[in-house]
Amino acid sequence: MHLCEYARKVALALLLEGVRAADPARLLRERVAFDGRRLRVAGYEVDVGGGAYIVALGKAAGPMAEAVEQILGDAVRGGIATLLRGAERVRLKRVVPVVAGHPRPDEGSLRAGELALRTAERAREEGVPLIVLLSGGGSAMAELPVPGVSLGDLQALTDLLLRSGASIGEINAVRKHLSLLKGGRLAATARPSPVLTLVLSDVVGDRLDVIASGPTVPDPTTYSDALRVLQAYGVLGEAPKPVVAYLERGCRGEAPETPKPGELDNSLAVVIGNNMTALRAMKAYAEGLGFRALILSSSIGGEAREAGRVLASVVLEAKRSGNPLDPPAVILCGGETTVTVRGKGRGGRNQEFALAAAIEIAGEEGVAVAAMGSDGVDGPTDAAGAVVDGHTIPRAKQLGIDPAAYLRDNDSYTFFRIVGGHIVTGPTRTNVNDFYVGVVATEEVTW
Amino acid sequence: MHLCEYARKVALALLLEGVRAADPARLLRERVAFDGRRLRVAGYEVDVGGGAYIVALGKAAGPMAEAVEQILGDAVRGGIATLLRGAERVRLKRVVPVVAGHPRPDEGSLRAGELALRTAERAREEGVPLIVLLSGGGSAMAELPVPGVSLGDLQALTDLLLRSGASIGEINAVRKHLSLLKGGRLAATARPSPVLTLVLSDVVGDRLDVIASGPTVPDPTTYSDALRVLQAYGVLGEAPKPVVAYLERGCRGEAPETPKPGELDNSLAVVIGNNMTALRAMKAYAEGLGFRALILSSSIGGEAREAGRVLASVVLEAKRSGNPLDPPAVILCGGETTVTVRGKGRGGRNQEFALAAAIEIAGEEGVAVAAMGSDGVDGPTDAAGAVVDGHTIPRAKQLGIDPAAYLRDNDSYTFFRIVGGHIVTGPTRTNVNDFYVGVVATEEVTW
Repeated sequence: MHLCEYARKVALALLLEGVRAADPARLLRERVAFDGRRLRVAGYEVDVGGGAYIVALGKAAGPMAEAVEQILGDAVRGGIATLLRGAERVRLKRVVPVVAGHPRPDEGSLRAGELALRTAERAREEGVPLIVLLSGGGSAMAELPVPGVSLGDLQALTDLLLRSGASIGEINAVRKHLSLLKGGRLAATARPSPVLTLVLSDVVGDRLDVIASGPTVPDPTTYSDALRVLQAYGVLGEAPKPVVAYLERGCRGEAPETPKPGELDNSLAVVIGNNMTALRAMKAYAEGLGFRALILSSSIGGEAREAGRVLASVVLEAKRSGNPLDPPAVILCGGETTVTVRGKGRGGRNQEFALAAAIEIAGEEGVAVAAMGSDGVDGPTDAAGAVVDGHTIPRAKQLGIDPAAYLRDNDSYTFFRIVGGHIVTGPTRTNVNDFYVGVVATEEVTW
Repeated sequence: MHLCEYARKVALALLLEGVRAADPARLLRERVAFDGRRLRVAGYEVDVGGGAYIVALGKAAGPMAEAVEQILGDAVRGGIATLLRGAERVRLKRVVPVVAGHPRPDEGSLRAGELALRTAERAREEGVPLIVLLSGGGSAMAELPVPGVSLGDLQALTDLLLRSGASIGEINAVRKHLSLLKGGRLAATARPSPVLTLVLSDVVGDRLDVIASGPTVPDPTTYSDALRVLQAYGVLGEAPKPVVAYLERGCRGEAPETPKPGELDNSLAVVIGNNMTALRAMKAYAEGLGFRALILSSSIGGEAREAGRVLASVVLEAKRSGNPLDPPAVILCGGETTVTVRGKGRGGRNQEFALAAAIEIAGEEGVAVAAMGSDGVDGPTDAAGAVVDGHTIPRAKQLGIDPAAYLRDNDSYTFFRIVGGHIVTGPTRTNVNDFYVGVVATEEVTW
């Protein structure tokens, strides 16, 4: 095995360790204690002796609901959990699984949204706590539009915004004002019953108002913020008429605002895991393999290809000068980049990150970079991301492939299909954003 | 002084330390020894007992020639050194100073080019060594076009390429094939006299074929590479006709190629300082102030605003989680980014880097980021760069300024003129690329 292949193997092993460490069922079992009456988490207590309802939204909702049902046993009166299409089955007793669309909301998302709202009403009527389990993707996977706005309108809007380069936070400021569920409205519906939200965070900085569009936390954004996002990304003209009309009514005070800070004293939220949880485990794992390891940041954002170039330049510097770490070195980061689509190709932000990095590290022995969506999904492709090394570009050129042309055309998926390097995992049962790994190997260690 | 102001002060002090450490006169005096006959540098020896000629090209040419004249004394028979318009005067005895344009070559550049070539011829005729002192900017500041191509053609082409987003390396692959000086041709002219090149590097990875367009090193690029750059950045149609015609003649073998690897055995080049030289000094300086410090990379490239976001995210992570360093922390990097101009504003790559970083660190106490061109110049402005802190964006908003709009319009210069934050140094007598500094202060230390 040459040194690049070894570096590549290390990068892949680290990604898998990240996924393992971010497994929400494991995190819930570790952090949530139940004595038959009191549920304890992170120093907080909720009395669930009289029963509780569960609303689990997002890509990791199934495993999270399963874990909480196991912990609480018969105290669970019912609830709802969203599942990704094609996701592994989960064993739920009283919580109803609903297959829902992502990244585009679909009919399943509507059903999940209705059931979630009904579950919150039931918790209020029966005077028992509502336990909300949130993970990324919850925004699309549970949806209940405001009157006059159809699911088709929301789908068209989501498509527009995802293509526009708007951040998740900006997209959600819009979605919250078009939903009866989001921006704190789910918790407002359960009021005055206690609402405990346990969060697997896929949002940089763990902003609870952003994760799954914050159905249980106050919403600092306003109708005019939502309109401003449409304007800033030039989609105001293309956006469905009923959407714009509703937001404008909201601006004039003719539609109810989302609950603002201070208005949800029945609601409490705890982050049980996030990108940094995974990065810390990856760092320890790398050190166990004999590498020096450094976590740069769990909040890498911006244009995917540019972030990929920066990580590559750090990795090359480590190889060249021993900064920021002497090799053998592992550089870890995480976050969520965006892709401004200019070409007509097929790809995802992680594959594009990796392709840009590959171009920077072309020809470098012992160097590998990998990028992967922790949920196992990267853009509209069947890959979770890609791993590249110093041999990737020379191999591409041998095959007559021009890497820069594929990057220009946003065609990273096709590039890796031809040259090799796809990471394919299927749904991973977790979702804590993306992982980026850079490896500088000096000699192979026997595993 | 609040903590942001302190962080800002630290960032500025570090930048100045970087400039000091990269002073080429100091570096030459430290590294070059002369015993009246033999000049020794980095383990190499050149016999200059019988005299030598000097060709000093680039933004730091004046101070470099001055230092070498002081070291060699009367052994210097003559030569030429380019000066920036408005640069501080230098004391030269036998070396002729020529004021030349940058980034656009001008009539002065032509004169410098002619003198440089004549100096190389004289070294060959008199059988004495040619000492070439190179620094960034040399490519524009000394120019001697191939027959049929005018300075106006070269200026138009340079403008086109600088605006296109092409890298310095790519721009130079074109320039080398339109010049009688570059791509190794200066050293070929002096052959068989020895040519010693001392380099203050402003190119990531110190690629000697790229710095000042490599007048004394073999040129691996070809006429068809040059044409391909024009094509890749979509400027083939707009490029001056004589340029395209000449490059096409070259492709057909009707114009002489630049000397290729293996063809310049009279030539030797030594890097006396680069971006990393400065970063290392900055790191030591930061540690002396009680900060933990880390050099991420001296080869940061890509889109300025995206690199700024990444540095900001690393700085925020340090503040939030103590990764990659526990505060008080300084994160250092260097390199050279590019700006893809989409708006109509005024700015430079470092000001744009800083503005993008400011948006990311908005509201964060004790955090500052600064970016600066080590030569004291940032784009077509009178600023060297900018420093921002957690208060920059709140201050802008108080003033009714929308930072994102200024960033979108590539109008960073105007933003900082209104909000404050410009770093103005004037020419610094050095040029080792750009410096990027992130600071997380925890408490003020008395200086």
